[in-house]
Amino acid sequence: MGEQETAAATNPKMQVMLGVSHSIQGYPKPSISSRNALNWILTKLVRQSCKKEYKILILHVQVPDQDGFEDMDSVYATGSDVKTQQRKEEKQGLALLEYFVKQCNEAEVDCEAWLSEGDPKLVICKEAKEKRPDLLVLGSRGLGTVQRIFVGGSSSYCSKHAPCPVVIIRRDPNETPYDPMDD
Amino acid sequence: MGEQETAAATNPKMQVMLGVSHSIQGYPKPSISSRNALNWILTKLVRQSCKKEYKILILHVQVPDQDGFEDMDSVYATGSDVKTQQRKEEKQGLALLEYFVKQCNEAEVDCEAWLSEGDPKLVICKEAKEKRPDLLVLGSRGLGTVQRIFVGGSSSYCSKHAPCPVVIIRRDPNETPYDPMDD
Repeated sequence: MGEQETAAATNPKMQVMLGVSHSIQGYPKPSISSRNALNWILTKLVRQSCKKEYKILILHVQVPDQDGFEDMDSVYATGSDVKTQQRKEEKQGLALLEYFVKQCNEAEVDCEAWLSEGDPKLVICKEAKEKRPDLLVLGSRGLGTVQRIFVGGSSSYCSKHAPCPVVIIRRDPNETPYDPMDD
Repeated sequence: MGEQETAAATNPKMQVMLGVSHSIQGYPKPSISSRNALNWILTKLVRQSCKKEYKILILHVQVPDQDGFEDMDSVYATGSDVKTQQRKEEKQGLALLEYFVKQCNEAEVDCEAWLSEGDPKLVICKEAKEKRPDLLVLGSRGLGTVQRIFVGGSSSYCSKHAPCPVVIIRRDPNETPYDPMDD
């Protein structure tokens, strides 16, 4: 109890980390599962009468092989091609984060957002180890094979390996889009 | 959003369901994992400045074969033996719940507590379907075989099958008691 009380005194905000992903269609559209996860935080977890007591830490992990170089011939790409592509990717990642930051601003809940790169499940756990949130929230699309490579598929890994409690916001089956690319 | 807003207006409290278990030693000692789970709710989830906005729904599921009749020869037990045993079990279950209710009272957080009977994982999901909490919280002891038959082992099932988001409070490895019976 002693340690927790000290932490509460020096840092009274509940730190809620949220991993977000883009839709299968691609940037900058956020995935339904990530939107649901933020919606759960803002409507269920955050208490309106003390919304100043929360901080949402929004992380988007970019997967280089999958997101970064899909339009490029990697054999012939020059160093400058790669850099241009990286800047483009970063810009798209920031545009995705902007959606979530805007939602938090509208709800008047404090947040910070950042991009990282690598295998989402590993990076989410690593960042959680650094940030030490009180709770990690992840959306989940379900059990589709394609989706597993995104954050949705990382959720079960993270719930086992993250250093903090994890809550997975599963999608209602009737929210599954007709066209999976809209996901 | 419409439905959620209506729900918030008619029922502004965050309903947090908590499944609790006794220690392996038996009643009325609560398991470390259940105590941890309540501790997380009271120190991390519940915001002190708006603690009136939470209600904790505390459920303990009794397993008849395992808890109820272990000292009895079931072949020769009369109907009255069974009833006496059931009353004894119920009393012990209530004594366990009392520990958790007392913690909530001391923290001045609203709660209700009840006993149920059956396979914990199935009953927890069934009760969650009825109560529709905003969050289900379960403690987890780890991966021990013996422990799996208690609530700790139910947590991964519930996180897949409960109709609401689930958060599992895992125990720090250094909290594992020297004597597993103290668990």
